[in-house]
Amino acid sequence: MQFHLDHTDAGTDARAGRIVTDHGVIETPTFMPVGTLGSVKAVEPRELHRDIDADIILGNTYHLFLRPGTDVLESAGGLHRFINWDGPILTDSGGFQVFSLGHRAELSEEGVEFQNHIDGDKHLFTPESVVDMQRSIGSDIMMVLDECPAADVSKEYARTSNELTLRWAERCKTRFEETEPHYGHEQALFAIVQGVVYPDVRRESARELVDMDFPGYAIGGLSVGETHTEMYDMVEAVTPLLPEDKPRYLMGVGTPENLLENVARGIDTFDCVMPTRNARNGTIFTTRGRMNIKNAQFEKDHTPIDPGLDNPVSQNFSRAYLRHLHKTGEILGLQLASIQNLAFYLWLMKTAREKIIAGHFDSWKADILPEINHRW
Amino acid sequence: MQFHLDHTDAGTDARAGRIVTDHGVIETPTFMPVGTLGSVKAVEPRELHRDIDADIILGNTYHLFLRPGTDVLESAGGLHRFINWDGPILTDSGGFQVFSLGHRAELSEEGVEFQNHIDGDKHLFTPESVVDMQRSIGSDIMMVLDECPAADVSKEYARTSNELTLRWAERCKTRFEETEPHYGHEQALFAIVQGVVYPDVRRESARELVDMDFPGYAIGGLSVGETHTEMYDMVEAVTPLLPEDKPRYLMGVGTPENLLENVARGIDTFDCVMPTRNARNGTIFTTRGRMNIKNAQFEKDHTPIDPGLDNPVSQNFSRAYLRHLHKTGEILGLQLASIQNLAFYLWLMKTAREKIIAGHFDSWKADILPEINHRW
Repeated sequence: MQFHLDHTDAGTDARAGRIVTDHGVIETPTFMPVGTLGSVKAVEPRELHRDIDADIILGNTYHLFLRPGTDVLESAGGLHRFINWDGPILTDSGGFQVFSLGHRAELSEEGVEFQNHIDGDKHLFTPESVVDMQRSIGSDIMMVLDECPAADVSKEYARTSNELTLRWAERCKTRFEETEPHYGHEQALFAIVQGVVYPDVRRESARELVDMDFPGYAIGGLSVGETHTEMYDMVEAVTPLLPEDKPRYLMGVGTPENLLENVARGIDTFDCVMPTRNARNGTIFTTRGRMNIKNAQFEKDHTPIDPGLDNPVSQNFSRAYLRHLHKTGEILGLQLASIQNLAFYLWLMKTAREKIIAGHFDSWKADILPEINHRW
Repeated sequence: MQFHLDHTDAGTDARAGRIVTDHGVIETPTFMPVGTLGSVKAVEPRELHRDIDADIILGNTYHLFLRPGTDVLESAGGLHRFINWDGPILTDSGGFQVFSLGHRAELSEEGVEFQNHIDGDKHLFTPESVVDMQRSIGSDIMMVLDECPAADVSKEYARTSNELTLRWAERCKTRFEETEPHYGHEQALFAIVQGVVYPDVRRESARELVDMDFPGYAIGGLSVGETHTEMYDMVEAVTPLLPEDKPRYLMGVGTPENLLENVARGIDTFDCVMPTRNARNGTIFTTRGRMNIKNAQFEKDHTPIDPGLDNPVSQNFSRAYLRHLHKTGEILGLQLASIQNLAFYLWLMKTAREKIIAGHFDSWKADILPEINHRW
């Protein structure tokens, strides 16, 4: 994996770059659609390519470990082949899901033991085992195992937790270096900066991880209940310490505004379930703002879902039809809304990239935020 | 609307024909995917064209009348524009749904009064109102209002019911001739032969309707609980009485075997929810037989869903992946299975057409029935 920094904005810390993987080039800033169980919900791989223009998607190691299991993925020749997606894939380490979905998670130096949320079976995830699992998955970008504390833990807890996460990062790196990819394509291992909402713990985490020399850095443990200001403050505390020539990934974030504000603070990649989850609830993100498609005002609105996006779904289906599909519970409503929302997120990041390169990012951001924040 | 009879089989009553509408040509025999509420469940219109190769889809007047309502469809410029489907559409009259889904249906000479299944509101459907509704929908092929008795009613009831259905057919035809299409394209009104499982009532129905001179004839009231032998007997009783130069539509039928057996008896078009409903339950129709995709045998079966079909869904996704999607309840599983099942149904009808034209229909049918009936 290589990272090329194409342009740095003059007025902000925004960057335009390219992450080069064996499965293709990821132009940054970008958004990674979430494919938890090996499927971006209600969206086909060809639609990710053609309508949404996604460069990379995300899978969840915790979920894939449980279903279909790494033995099935190994027998398929890896996740790419299993799900019929030939672009890059990033997987998380499972840490976040163990703490949020697993039951009775018991933390030790060795790793974390938990009962899964499907049938209650017990498992132990260690820094070594999550690297092994991600070797079996074959993701282009792998993540280290981390502890994800809640937003309201004490500073003391944050510091102790962070120290464990740093030791786990070192062990992940060792295991990564001792092992080989299974399917012939290169894999990279990214570190995760933790530290809850305490800037000095965040900085300590970043410094230590940078010393370990990873090819990319994520900021984790945000978007878990803290305020937006706290989130932006943590990103501002961390990004100046991260190497310029490595990609930066803000995990689990966020709203369209969150994305733009964090791009301005030097973040390159994002992931979040918001566009697909909200799609299924009838909340439609568009270049003109956020629509609750079930509202009566759309009953006879036969204009396209989003004239501002040039894919056939946004252009060829009407708001009235999308409303009808959502009101009647038709599956097609979930499909069209998911494509629209992801296409919007990707458009937002691609346009941000263009504006960064053209030198107009800051003024464009100021102009577009009221438009995309508009609710109707 | 025109019908061209291209070929009649020597060994059976199978026919190859073409129905020409203002929205395109329908090559017969064919299967019409069911789009109850203006959406073929879990399938996009472009997929109907490209992957499934459907010539025509079906909508349900009863459902469209309730949601979104004919005023919304009128404001959109008809159902084709509302749902972004530029091919032909057939709508039923609502009769079948009133009797199967409506509550407290009260039959009179005037029509049928019922409470709808959504909010219990009362409505009256008359021969005239269902023609008016289908004018608002703008379907290329409209159906007359009919009473659909259960399979086990007495012959006396069947005869009385049939007489009412014949009077309603006459009234539908009169209303049709008094009114004009709303959207500039031609609409045709088909009659429906009823008569339960009584051959002489069926024949009486067919003779009377043929005297009224409709441009096409459906056989209704089958696939409602009678045996397959009874179904085939009814079709055999009726088709010899129907004009050769008019299309014949067997409503609500059926399994792949039912389709081939009825093609052999001179039927041109079919519709049924089976391929899409079964897809959502994990039953996959393929050129090699019917698979319960949740079975353990498919856990590591990384061969394509159906190597015998040449669309990208059947070819590029594996049985193991489809199983995983169904086991985990992913929406994509419903999408891929629905495309596969409809693509199979359309392939079966297109291949039947080729074999009829080539003069090998009967031997091909004998060869393929054991293959497609195989269960695994």
